[in-house]
Amino acid sequence: MARINPNYSKLKAGYLFPEISRRVRVYQSEHPDLKIIRMGIGDVVLPIAEAVRTAMHKAVDEMGTLSGFRGYGPDLGYDFLREAIAKEYKARGAHVEASEIFVSDGSKCDTGNIQEIFATNASIALTDPVYPVYVDTNVMAGRTGEIDAEGRYAGIEYLPMHADNGFVPPLPKTNPDVIYLCSPNNPTGTVMTRKELTAWVDYAHKSGSVILYDSAYEAYIQDPSIPRSIFEIPGARKVAIEFRSFSKTAGFTGVRCGYTVIPLELEGTGLNGNKVSLHALWSRRHATKFNGVSYPVQRGAEAVFSADGKEQIRSTIGYYLENARLLREGLLALGFEVFGGENAPYIWLKTPKGVDSWGFFDYLLNEVQVVGTPGAGFGPSGEGYFRLSAFALRETVHEALARLAAKFHKS
Amino acid sequence: MARINPNYSKLKAGYLFPEISRRVRVYQSEHPDLKIIRMGIGDVVLPIAEAVRTAMHKAVDEMGTLSGFRGYGPDLGYDFLREAIAKEYKARGAHVEASEIFVSDGSKCDTGNIQEIFATNASIALTDPVYPVYVDTNVMAGRTGEIDAEGRYAGIEYLPMHADNGFVPPLPKTNPDVIYLCSPNNPTGTVMTRKELTAWVDYAHKSGSVILYDSAYEAYIQDPSIPRSIFEIPGARKVAIEFRSFSKTAGFTGVRCGYTVIPLELEGTGLNGNKVSLHALWSRRHATKFNGVSYPVQRGAEAVFSADGKEQIRSTIGYYLENARLLREGLLALGFEVFGGENAPYIWLKTPKGVDSWGFFDYLLNEVQVVGTPGAGFGPSGEGYFRLSAFALRETVHEALARLAAKFHKS
Repeated sequence: MARINPNYSKLKAGYLFPEISRRVRVYQSEHPDLKIIRMGIGDVVLPIAEAVRTAMHKAVDEMGTLSGFRGYGPDLGYDFLREAIAKEYKARGAHVEASEIFVSDGSKCDTGNIQEIFATNASIALTDPVYPVYVDTNVMAGRTGEIDAEGRYAGIEYLPMHADNGFVPPLPKTNPDVIYLCSPNNPTGTVMTRKELTAWVDYAHKSGSVILYDSAYEAYIQDPSIPRSIFEIPGARKVAIEFRSFSKTAGFTGVRCGYTVIPLELEGTGLNGNKVSLHALWSRRHATKFNGVSYPVQRGAEAVFSADGKEQIRSTIGYYLENARLLREGLLALGFEVFGGENAPYIWLKTPKGVDSWGFFDYLLNEVQVVGTPGAGFGPSGEGYFRLSAFALRETVHEALARLAAKFHKS
Repeated sequence: MARINPNYSKLKAGYLFPEISRRVRVYQSEHPDLKIIRMGIGDVVLPIAEAVRTAMHKAVDEMGTLSGFRGYGPDLGYDFLREAIAKEYKARGAHVEASEIFVSDGSKCDTGNIQEIFATNASIALTDPVYPVYVDTNVMAGRTGEIDAEGRYAGIEYLPMHADNGFVPPLPKTNPDVIYLCSPNNPTGTVMTRKELTAWVDYAHKSGSVILYDSAYEAYIQDPSIPRSIFEIPGARKVAIEFRSFSKTAGFTGVRCGYTVIPLELEGTGLNGNKVSLHALWSRRHATKFNGVSYPVQRGAEAVFSADGKEQIRSTIGYYLENARLLREGLLALGFEVFGGENAPYIWLKTPKGVDSWGFFDYLLNEVQVVGTPGAGFGPSGEGYFRLSAFALRETVHEALARLAAKFHKS
């Protein structure tokens, strides 16, 4: 019988979000009349911008004509989109060339697959809590040992983020080959300052690490002093790969488009100490295992950068940020300790004393039918915290706050 | 400096199709006035069917409304599409449930990524010539040694297909964990009969192998006695995974959608000899590294199975098959030895005596500006053969044949 990848058996029972969905499904089936408010999975709810839809319609029509039909697109994405992205980077003072941009079907895929280009014995450091995809994909690839009782895999260096260190992860102690960072952070909703990010770039120069920088939520940064790209930091081009997405920027969770930037000068090292371009490796991976993003989707993504697109998207992001403000202030008023939610669409709150994060998840589901994400699902240091997403309709936010207020009002 | 995956250095210089594109680009830039006829990459040219475009337009419009907006779709695909696919399987006498179907962005991705769920030391057998993705993805994963002078990687069992064995690959000698098969075959254009495929299923039961069955070209099968799915063969559900695509069936090379079928009863074995569901493993992989296919694309794919869609697609497939017939008969009349092209969109021909396949590629490019695919690019047993694709406009086929006739007419 065919031998399977034994590393999969090291994974925890279920990926976090399917497990949440499962519990919600069970609860709903037992309580069909109750209206559940979903603020667990960070999924957008507002319609796709008109500029994007117009561009997609046009592309679909083109595909219906002999002259406009497009078959296989370029592996790395159409130039029209790569150039629009590069232009936007440059406008913000980050040096990124169109040729360094890889268009993909989303950041989850890219942050999940990127580990393939590193050695199986490459060492990994990541913040804790963390987006589970970074961890799980390294487990699957055999870069870790078993998981311990607290939820840490052997062979990964966990960099704890919690209220006591202001959610600023410490620098690694192990000179890891690869470091995952995410800002604005999922799940904590906190952001890295220019000074902090500069310290990471400087560290990577010393340690020889590659930083995998996930900035899927960069569009939510309001404070102009906060970097939106790691490539705003001098020296980053020699140490960093950046991941971005249209998912949260333009409501593309169901449309599917993201991109990854690998500077041409970024190198890793082969078995003989030879230097190898990571851009070349990822190009080879893209060419061999990927076949480009749907043409109408790439045209839709391009329209995000048009004047109309930008205007429409700014309004949507503003709407979600107002949700975040309402949640943040509402929860503070109820006495919760609350983090994030100012330059990010996520609210990270401390669970009530004596209640762990899955306990709080079950409590909210059972008592007020509000679904959030238990912090422990993001790693051991997430225990005692809980994530709420601002991706909801305004009336949903008000309703959730009203339900919470009924349970947690200060007496 | 970060250690990279050293297996990438075992790969040949370039993936076949980028190498072809490169040579064509160089030639075109040196001869800007010459019109090059491209029959190399198997890419479709006819417009997307109206039924598909209508469905995509409707889905894009839905995404513009609050009530119709869709965010993250189900990881494994929307039920409407999975059910339409399962219904089609059943109509052809193959037992496939909707729950066994994984919707993806294409067969290249699925056939490239599926190896991840098998052990790093799983042994591989594949036909030679073969679609390069099967080989390269196993090289990248470290399942092979170095490549030898003839182009064979150590650790892979190559099953030769050539004119002398009628392109019927021999059964493996090594009881491999995994066997890649493709019918209608890319690149040879030949098909497996029911008897041959039954022998493979029987073999896999004995050897304990899993057959990875690529039927991306099944829509081109005209002979009703030829199986279009491995699941038409009794016992296949315990030994096979099937890959299919809308790319060639419905012109989706630029739209991007495919699907993979993993029967619920298909199992592999873990380190302790424990049995593990391959469906569960691939589900975990999908959930962790993939985020579903664009909603408008899935609606477009669903429309392929509508009455209008089927009618429109049948007509397109008929057009390409007529191209194949013209190429086949035209080349035969010029004295070439020709295979395939009857139940498949590919023509596989023997290169003239004394000319190897890259030599023939360069000759055709230089002399008549016709681009095909050198057989050696598909593996050592492809040497001495050449692939032409029937995915072209009729006038292109006539023009290509006329140019070939001018060079190769029988005197």
